[in-house]
Amino acid sequence: MLFHTGKTKVAFSALIETGGAHGPFNKDKTLAFNKVFTNIGDAYNSCSGVFTAPVTGVYHFSFFYHAGGEHKARLTLFKNSEMIVKSSDHQTGSDGADNGGNAAVLQLQQGDKVYVSMPANHHVWAAENHTSFSGFQVC
Amino acid sequence: MLFHTGKTKVAFSALIETGGAHGPFNKDKTLAFNKVFTNIGDAYNSCSGVFTAPVTGVYHFSFFYHAGGEHKARLTLFKNSEMIVKSSDHQTGSDGADNGGNAAVLQLQQGDKVYVSMPANHHVWAAENHTSFSGFQVC
Amino acid sequence: MLFHTGKTKVAFSALIETGGAHGPFNKDKTLAFNKVFTNIGDAYNSCSGVFTAPVTGVYHFSFFYHAGGEHKARLTLFKNSEMIVKSSDHQTGSDGADNGGNAAVLQLQQGDKVYVSMPANHHVWAAENHTSFSGFQVC
Repeated sequence: MLFHTGKTKVAFSALIETGGAHGPFNKDKTLAFNKVFTNIGDAYNSCSGVFTAPVTGVYHFSFFYHAGGEHKARLTLFKNSEMIVKSSDHQTGSDGADNGGNAAVLQLQQGDKVYVSMPANHHVWAAENHTSFSGFQVC
Repeated sequence: MLFHTGKTKVAFSALIETGGAHGPFNKDKTLAFNKVFTNIGDAYNSCSGVFTAPVTGVYHFSFFYHAGGEHKARLTLFKNSEMIVKSSDHQTGSDGADNGGNAAVLQLQQGDKVYVSMPANHHVWAAENHTSFSGFQVC
Repeated sequence: MLFHTGKTKVAFSALIETGGAHGPFNKDKTLAFNKVFTNIGDAYNSCSGVFTAPVTGVYHFSFFYHAGGEHKARLTLFKNSEMIVKSSDHQTGSDGADNGGNAAVLQLQQGDKVYVSMPANHHVWAAENHTSFSGFQVC
């Protein structure tokens, strides 16, 4: 069976699984989502956490996280050095945990890099399939 | 007008609407998102809550929920019996409500089943268009 | 290079950036996501916040927001005058901030309008890349 004749297939989906809280660290950190479910076209690098567009096109990206209240939480989706979308949560003693996420459709040139970064002094919960990063080529 | 000649179109989107809190129950439960907006290809079963891949391909799934703080909340996206992505919230007396969700891109074989399950003793808010499950074929 | 010969490309992604809290207002308001990242096919109007389907087809939409606890938060995705999916948060003195979002796949006729609306007396955080609206044609 033929799908999309002539189209490059690019799609990935991965979790960050380090066994518990990830961070806080003393500097900004690109999250390496290391448990990969899908990596069609092999454009996502699970060691660096960076997706590199293999062809010029339009791509959809999303990320979701869980985080306890003991530290601030914030993840930002970057295209090269440009901040695209972000999700944050405050430190709080009264609410045990929160969730966040965001998504964007981006027109990428071949070689553009997309990744999720966490600022210094923030954290996320990197266990039990909670914190994910996915993308695919729309057209 | 012809789009994607030769491609099977598969896409669905549904809400769970039971009139209020759904759960907690005394065992794990697949959520039957019963208010269907879209079901192109008829691959999503609104009675069982299960999506069955009609053709081998790459699919995107997402779910979103709202939940009060009176009980724990947790939804997990499964592919057959494999846990894929999850979103959780703690029980709390101090924060009235929270939201969560997650997404994944999955390579499915024809007949693979994808669904959202809630563990025993958890709950979500199943009213007013808050808790949803969507999917579509990427390629 | 040719992708999807014969397919209209439609995809957009935008943030609402007004410099801080947006609302509460004394009536319902369609959010004008004014900082546009992507607008292929020019179907999203950043002045009105309204997406108008340029061709009949199947489309995916998502929105995400951040909101402080000082007022209620609620965003609803509408198709014409039909409420599709929603995400809400309560007013609270104890939890500084929360996040929400939702998504749907919709079959649209040419000219159908899709937008995100906030009810009277609610608010969202419209700063620092937190509150977004995206969509693209699936098929």
